[in-house]
Amino acid sequence: MLCLRHCQRLTRLGPLNNTHRHPLRLAPGAWAAADLHSSRGSTEQHNHRSGGQQQYQWNHSATWRHALAGLLAGTGAVLAYGFYYSKTERAATSVGDPRGPLPVYTQDEVTKHRSVQDGGVWVTYKGGVYDITEFVAMHPGGDKILLAAGGAIEPFWSLYAVHNQEHVLEILEEYKVGELSAEDQRRQQKQQASTSDPYSGDPERHPALRVNSLKPFNAEPPPELLTDSYVTPTALFFKRNHLPVPAVDPHSYRLRVEGLPGGGVLSLSLDELKSRFPKHTITATLQCAGNRRSEMNLVKQVKGLNWGIAAISNATWSGARLSDVLRAAGYGPEVARWARHVQFEGLDRDITGTTYGASIPLSKAVSEEGDVLLAYEMNGADIPADHGYPVRAVVPGTVGARNVKWLGKVIVSSEESSSHWQQNDYKGFSPGTDWDTVDFSSAPAIQELPIQSAITTPAEGAVVDRSAQELTVRGYAWSGGGREVVRVDVSADGGKTWCVAQLIGGDPEAPPPLPGRAWGWKLWEATVPLPPRGAPRGGPEAPGGHMEIVCKAVDSSYNMQPDTVAPIWNLRGVLSNAWHRVTVTIREDEEEEDEEE
Amino acid sequence: MLCLRHCQRLTRLGPLNNTHRHPLRLAPGAWAAADLHSSRGSTEQHNHRSGGQQQYQWNHSATWRHALAGLLAGTGAVLAYGFYYSKTERAATSVGDPRGPLPVYTQDEVTKHRSVQDGGVWVTYKGGVYDITEFVAMHPGGDKILLAAGGAIEPFWSLYAVHNQEHVLEILEEYKVGELSAEDQRRQQKQQASTSDPYSGDPERHPALRVNSLKPFNAEPPPELLTDSYVTPTALFFKRNHLPVPAVDPHSYRLRVEGLPGGGVLSLSLDELKSRFPKHTITATLQCAGNRRSEMNLVKQVKGLNWGIAAISNATWSGARLSDVLRAAGYGPEVARWARHVQFEGLDRDITGTTYGASIPLSKAVSEEGDVLLAYEMNGADIPADHGYPVRAVVPGTVGARNVKWLGKVIVSSEESSSHWQQNDYKGFSPGTDWDTVDFSSAPAIQELPIQSAITTPAEGAVVDRSAQELTVRGYAWSGGGREVVRVDVSADGGKTWCVAQLIGGDPEAPPPLPGRAWGWKLWEATVPLPPRGAPRGGPEAPGGHMEIVCKAVDSSYNMQPDTVAPIWNLRGVLSNAWHRVTVTIREDEEEEDEEE
Repeated sequence: MLCLRHCQRLTRLGPLNNTHRHPLRLAPGAWAAADLHSSRGSTEQHNHRSGGQQQYQWNHSATWRHALAGLLAGTGAVLAYGFYYSKTERAATSVGDPRGPLPVYTQDEVTKHRSVQDGGVWVTYKGGVYDITEFVAMHPGGDKILLAAGGAIEPFWSLYAVHNQEHVLEILEEYKVGELSAEDQRRQQKQQASTSDPYSGDPERHPALRVNSLKPFNAEPPPELLTDSYVTPTALFFKRNHLPVPAVDPHSYRLRVEGLPGGGVLSLSLDELKSRFPKHTITATLQCAGNRRSEMNLVKQVKGLNWGIAAISNATWSGARLSDVLRAAGYGPEVARWARHVQFEGLDRDITGTTYGASIPLSKAVSEEGDVLLAYEMNGADIPADHGYPVRAVVPGTVGARNVKWLGKVIVSSEESSSHWQQNDYKGFSPGTDWDTVDFSSAPAIQELPIQSAITTPAEGAVVDRSAQELTVRGYAWSGGGREVVRVDVSADGGKTWCVAQLIGGDPEAPPPLPGRAWGWKLWEATVPLPPRGAPRGGPEAPGGHMEIVCKAVDSSYNMQPDTVAPIWNLRGVLSNAWHRVTVTIREDEEEEDEEE
Repeated sequence: MLCLRHCQRLTRLGPLNNTHRHPLRLAPGAWAAADLHSSRGSTEQHNHRSGGQQQYQWNHSATWRHALAGLLAGTGAVLAYGFYYSKTERAATSVGDPRGPLPVYTQDEVTKHRSVQDGGVWVTYKGGVYDITEFVAMHPGGDKILLAAGGAIEPFWSLYAVHNQEHVLEILEEYKVGELSAEDQRRQQKQQASTSDPYSGDPERHPALRVNSLKPFNAEPPPELLTDSYVTPTALFFKRNHLPVPAVDPHSYRLRVEGLPGGGVLSLSLDELKSRFPKHTITATLQCAGNRRSEMNLVKQVKGLNWGIAAISNATWSGARLSDVLRAAGYGPEVARWARHVQFEGLDRDITGTTYGASIPLSKAVSEEGDVLLAYEMNGADIPADHGYPVRAVVPGTVGARNVKWLGKVIVSSEESSSHWQQNDYKGFSPGTDWDTVDFSSAPAIQELPIQSAITTPAEGAVVDRSAQELTVRGYAWSGGGREVVRVDVSADGGKTWCVAQLIGGDPEAPPPLPGRAWGWKLWEATVPLPPRGAPRGGPEAPGGHMEIVCKAVDSSYNMQPDTVAPIWNLRGVLSNAWHRVTVTIREDEEEEDEEE
């Protein structure tokens, strides 16, 4: 009971101090602010602060609410905090540690332990088996840890170096219940695929990804991990492949730049691309045109992968500016006299040899302000295989489909790419257009994307205790064309009334982006009140004990998301950017009998 | 009865031939297409075609439907057609012309004749009094002519040179019923205002304008005139003044260009502006941030002028490029190192001497693609007093408020304009923000405007005969930032199902605009079916015999208008761009007893 009540109190914490803009940094006043909003008693205060240096470290690396939201995927210190807390309480309520030599479990046995109902939540780490049921029970709202339930914890921790801190491992050790069998340890380490499969060369992927399609590989991160950090860890960045991942030898790789009809030809090795042109770095969000398609499917079935809300991610990209490379190939400003488009051809190809292709408007390609990159780094490292190794186009502000990966050819042209993906896909249509009437030539290829936002926390169907009185809502917002997100409105009553969310950008020290060059998303959070205990249960405020949370974003051109999905429904299920809605259940509390504590 | 049935048939005409893109030009096939869709009998065919050369002229200057929609404000030939038709019928049913010498009427007597109920519809023209009741009766849908009822017809005809054709005047003469008194003729010609009024120098305005505020003068054209032509006639272009119109002497006028802090100073006379810099012409739509504010007022009262849907107009503008003038003043590309904004100061000032002011981002100002003009011509003539004579800023794609009129000073600066209109007005807020909580510094100044569209025909409350079976809907659509309108969806059932409207751009011979440089609006039209006679009267299709027509537009970034007004409501009532809705009443027909004709 103590654990549960503690947790409720934690979720009661108020809004972040206004000076706090980055989820992983704590403003000086935030600790005091957290205290102010907490109803924690003096005993707990003592417990909390008795952590000394260890607790202090946590205190300065994350806020409480980010801590609870972060768990496994956020900062290791979060887990440390949770374990620490648990340890303190266990020390006070149990006598010694009666555990003897630990049993050996097979992976199958571990896999069976995925919830309390399964006999507990187990995970493995470096050959050890850990029962973290007690930790999970302490944090019913922080259920991200369940993503690892029944499996290995390493793929999650490897995303965040902070987990390797010694005290985290020390705490984990307290939960050890056994050893993984030697055979399963070996099996965990080797993963081999059949060589006859065209996808056999595909790289391994992070197990947290939600797979929409294995071949080609298409997957998105779990929403609750998506907004844990401003820059999405590369392993969690959504994957959108149209074809098998090509194996490209960086030594023989050549990027060919040419013009159609006519014009100069430039062939660049990877080293030449890196050495002949200044390295330019941007932080840019990429979004699949089909992000949130699943919501359109609820209206009427569309064709395409059933993406949730996480076919969008944010990374830093480094490479040569496309405009510099084009100029070096002889395509300077005068090219506007005859050219209108710049086409990209990938090295990924189907069984007929047809490569993936797309194009962007010339004005975007040749403008320095367009910031189009021929990128060879993602988040400070070589671009990994899934994201276009060794070179991809990064066209910030533009739909993912034009950010061609495994880039083989750049073609300055009077024509758009003739590829299927430019001509007969990735276009928007009226809800009244169906497959019998559609004329793909009647709509422009999607380039800049419209304003978008979604709620990543709480999840659909989450349960909130009414005694918590308020709820912190988090999410992302982004707009195409370099239009900065200037406001996110959040409603706790299905869109009847609205409050303004706090926006969280990238580097708080950096100057604001120039107009039309805001390529990265904004994360946001808002604390909304729960309807009071006396509110009518069946009324619009809380029909049947539910609460509908809604978000909508506004960009610097004051474009706003449409209210509903049906009127923007289209046969390809693209451009799904209506208000995002999440319904949570409000759980009535039992009377707080130990209020006198 | 014949007249009425004729009219019904005319409204039954089908969609325009696809090759017809300009409202004032007729594609070769359109005449045949009109015949094809008409149920006109052979007698009427004969009447219609017997006009010979005169009829032929009309036939090639406008389509039927544009003709009916145009009337007074469209092409003079429309009126000619109407009069011609009437004359033919009168000749067949009356014996001779029994009129003798005509009586003299006062303006008061004429003014009393504004409808059939008032004893007829009278207008004056060059001292003559004309009873056009019969013409109006023939065209119950074409009620634009009633805008002139009881008054002079010249202000309407002066907009369109085509009305001065001889045959139009010949036809009008048949309707002459008297002469206007000499005194009223003199009074019509002189209009004098008090000299003590700061607004006494304000110019005369077109009587068709719907005035929202006289001092300062703010007015919009009637919606039914707004989309008669792609380029809005200057006299009908919406007027949005913040202060009295300044009297600027073109000979002593100087435009001052300077930098803050420091930088060069350039002072240009009007002649120098015209002669030293290339003349650049664009067609650009300007829209007031408060357009459609009246719809927000229906949700909850806001502060501001109660604009309808016509605080938006489209014109051609000629002048020097701002980027050229800035370069001549020493502010070339390197200015981006220290400057961020270009401020404009008007010559209009309040009683404290404070001038109107605004600023735009530097990147828009210095970019050749931004197409910002220091304009001295509007629709091919000197910019008139109400629109900024002799020089105004035209910032295409940007809210009207930054298109500073009567331009006195251009200032390159590291700061935005400090004016009230930049800092504490023309900003968007959440619906949850009220005058007690608003912090104007928390929102960016409106620059680019979001996607917009509205229905200009039919008008709210219009009555449609069910026998017409279908209804032609017309309107405008535009988006800020040079984003081209790529689609307009129209619904005849309140947004349940949608069809795609035909878009009508400017010069059909011109190449499509380059990405990000589509400054002019699109007009559009769609023919939607009426619910069938057997449809449930009270159902969603036609509740109570009504039909709700809705439009929503999509721009090249696939931004769409939000569904409803309430969630975009803001305390200043700006950025009102929800779907536009018009409800029409469906009138059940009596049985067509003379069907055998």
